Amino acid sequence: MSRKIHLALHPYGVGGPGQHGLWKDPRVAKNASIDINYYIRQAQAAEHALFDALFIVDSQFINATYPAHYLNRLEPLTLLSAVATHTKHVGLVATASSTYNSPFNLARRFASLDHISGGRAGWNVVTSFDSGAARNFGLDEHLDYPTRYGRALEFVQVARGLWDSYEDDAFPADAERDVFLDPAKLHALNHAGEHLKVAGPLNISRSPQGQPVIFQAGVSEEGRDLAARVAEGIYAPGGSLQQAQDYYADIKRRTASYGRDPEHIKIFIHGSPVVAATDEAARRREREIFEEDDDFDGNLALLGRSFGAYDFSRHDLDAPFPDVAHLAEKGGRTGAARIIARAESEKLTLRQVVDSLREFRRSPFVGAPKTVADSIEEWFDAATFDGINLAFRTDEDVAAFVDGVVPILRERGLFRTEYESDTLRGNLGLPVPRNQFAREPQLADD
Amino acid sequence: MSRKIHLALHPYGVGGPGQHGLWKDPRVAKNASIDINYYIRQAQAAEHALFDALFIVDSQFINATYPAHYLNRLEPLTLLSAVATHTKHVGLVATASSTYNSPFNLARRFASLDHISGGRAGWNVVTSFDSGAARNFGLDEHLDYPTRYGRALEFVQVARGLWDSYEDDAFPADAERDVFLDPAKLHALNHAGEHLKVAGPLNISRSPQGQPVIFQAGVSEEGRDLAARVAEGIYAPGGSLQQAQDYYADIKRRTASYGRDPEHIKIFIHGSPVVAATDEAARRREREIFEEDDDFDGNLALLGRSFGAYDFSRHDLDAPFPDVAHLAEKGGRTGAARIIARAESEKLTLRQVVDSLREFRRSPFVGAPKTVADSIEEWFDAATFDGINLAFRTDEDVAAFVDGVVPILRERGLFRTEYESDTLRGNLGLPVPRNQFAREPQLADD
Ligand SMILES: Cc1cc2nc3c(=O)[nH]c(=O)nc-3n(C[C@H](O)[C@H](O)[C@H](O)COP(=O)(O)O)c2cc1C
Ligand SMILES: Cc1cc2nc3c(=O)[nH]c(=O)nc-3n(C[C@H](O)[C@H](O)[C@H](O)COP(=O)(O)O)c2cc1C
Repeated sequence: MSRKIHLALHPYGVGGPGQHGLWKDPRVAKNASIDINYYIRQAQAAEHALFDALFIVDSQFINATYPAHYLNRLEPLTLLSAVATHTKHVGLVATASSTYNSPFNLARRFASLDHISGGRAGWNVVTSFDSGAARNFGLDEHLDYPTRYGRALEFVQVARGLWDSYEDDAFPADAERDVFLDPAKLHALNHAGEHLKVAGPLNISRSPQGQPVIFQAGVSEEGRDLAARVAEGIYAPGGSLQQAQDYYADIKRRTASYGRDPEHIKIFIHGSPVVAATDEAARRREREIFEEDDDFDGNLALLGRSFGAYDFSRHDLDAPFPDVAHLAEKGGRTGAARIIARAESEKLTLRQVVDSLREFRRSPFVGAPKTVADSIEEWFDAATFDGINLAFRTDEDVAAFVDGVVPILRERGLFRTEYESDTLRGNLGLPVPRNQFAREPQLADD
Repeated sequence: MSRKIHLALHPYGVGGPGQHGLWKDPRVAKNASIDINYYIRQAQAAEHALFDALFIVDSQFINATYPAHYLNRLEPLTLLSAVATHTKHVGLVATASSTYNSPFNLARRFASLDHISGGRAGWNVVTSFDSGAARNFGLDEHLDYPTRYGRALEFVQVARGLWDSYEDDAFPADAERDVFLDPAKLHALNHAGEHLKVAGPLNISRSPQGQPVIFQAGVSEEGRDLAARVAEGIYAPGGSLQQAQDYYADIKRRTASYGRDPEHIKIFIHGSPVVAATDEAARRREREIFEEDDDFDGNLALLGRSFGAYDFSRHDLDAPFPDVAHLAEKGGRTGAARIIARAESEKLTLRQVVDSLREFRRSPFVGAPKTVADSIEEWFDAATFDGINLAFRTDEDVAAFVDGVVPILRERGLFRTEYESDTLRGNLGLPVPRNQFAREPQLADD
């Protein structure tokens, strides 16, 4: 069996961070981000193309100065539950914060989604990027890194314990013997740890995948460590080929160092391909997009996002980049540190830093279908990813990729010609986790 | 316009508390409670009959000695979101605890459901019956009554504040003027109260109903007071005609005393009609059900539920009812107090108390279609309810009511012949709440 590329679709709605101008495209419905039919259509397009999953990012924070439109959106699990019954094969990955949820409720909702979808639920565990979310949950400040990630690890462990509350055959529902639930196959977790106290059991039976698939997105040391310990998929930061390669190798090595099979963690990079009939047309389209999204205030607000929704507009745009090192832990430490380092070494003004952010978002996958397929193959062969989380601006862009690039990848044996399985786990080639409470060997054992 | 009865459907799945034997009925699928297709079919049947809503009860607790099967079930919001896209008119009411949720997340999920369903979301606010839930959320004990209900009131107020984060026209999405969001129409709540601290704004626009419809279920003084202040619907305890009448009058009076229109709180009693071709056949079926559900251990566990999952099996069944007064606040104070009072006044043993619980569940709506329609009309005329929350055991029982009783109610002008509206609010005759932050008069104003 040759190694295959995994593909997921990350719907932008009216625009994610950075797609400032997308909502103005006449092909994009102004209510896309809150229209369930938009998401159902996206999921069906993804399934038609045999993609592994629909991937929904999330935040629990907005304010008036943010590039705000993309934060008017449906809550991911409610969204994916509605999508589930209109699809059969495509995986459904929801981003949910381990900082601003409680494990019993969240584990239950993911188990419900796994039941509703017949085994296609995935959970992208984040500790929350937007530090302003803290004030929506009774806190004044976002948790510090050790607490955020300590809680995240414990949270996932608790969720897994709850998902194992019932052995697979705990509900014989045998009318003859008058046994609906076999109490010996019900297990309370009785967890009492540093961050969480949860008795269990969960009030829903083990789900079709055994456990929903755990994704993770976080680039700090702590984030990578969490991924290596518990994640089965990663939404990786990407960057240059070299950066992606280093990240990939680092994660696989860390995963092995925890005694896990590095094949059992699938690394997805972000990709927003620009595909057109010719390379020239694609580059033209890329420039068009660049113009469309060129919104200085939007990018200024976005810069602030990496420093805890800091309002940079109070600073002189043409003075040297202000000293905001003390805010670097408020958002994403890694991204913030990178921005500060670059501003220092290149002696950039605030305005120049804002403008430099635009380049960071350039896609390596631009061109005619064959060119894009070539780049994807090159990156894949260079061990930069196991999968790509694809984001498109319009339905036409989805179609250009699906009809143009996917068939070439398929011809080259790089992408599936049919779903291997009905579950996300199956399609990603991940094993079903053994129930931690089960005494006897289970069907799921490999 | 003559007053009409409202009808909701409360799906039992494989059985709610007390339906111990239902899962053994060969017409009931053993996985009904976790099968989304079961709920979609129920919702479609309810919609076909022009019912106002599908009503989902909930708990966040289970243990091995409970009559446990009915607690293996889907989480209500995940469930209803999937149901939403397979229906067009029927309301979707989910029970959710104000004790074991955070308002930002819950308000967001209900707003999402309201968007996904096009204005059909309702929230049944409970403070949680099962005190064991506390241990699934890091607490050792369930909150005491003043805290539970103080938090519940504040929680609903916060949710409403979050639902009003955006004025109806906050998203002009006007490409010409380059304005997606009008920041002047975005309002942060900045709530800091006794129980909750939530900054806001919510990250989803105001939903089709303005706000999801608030239901409430709780019978204590505190529960009634909460209902009178904020609820637009109630899942009422029912009981005898006299009890239902007293409760109805009490709630309407209290609601008026808060300056609210008593027409704007719709009181639903529970009804599990038994309908058959003849009165005699219906009574036979009733006895059959009584036998089917006759499970002493199940009823003993259910009794314990009213006292904080107390294990009564440690007591002598034939000794006088034990002194458990100190546990009466652990579950539902009112129900527990009623049980204790009766045990004392009638000098009942534990066994007799358990057996007496069965009678309490007898339905007043048993007979041939005309008989049942007559009883319903009699109760309605006696001002005992505005609506009935109907629970049936099998699809055949749903059909017997819908095909037999509903047409008679319709002939008598007691039930609708078509939906008045596409929203739950519209069908219940409830006004759209005014946005508390809006300066100018809004469309919604009445
Ligand atoms: C590709 C990628 C996608 C992410 N998606 C989200 C998201 O949807 N929501 C969120 O709150 N955080 C998201 N994060 C950020 C994580 O929440 C993480 O906590 C943040 O980056 C700060 O931690 P770190 O320094 O470990 O990266 C994402 C990160 C990456 C790299
Ligand atoms: C008809 C009815 C239905 C109820 N449904 C639920 C439910 O689904 N989940 C729940 O936790 N509590 C439910 N409750 C109970 C409330 O949570 C309430 O807190 C409990 O009865 C104790 O408070 P009280 O003494 O005010 O009634 C229900 C109560 C009634 C009367």
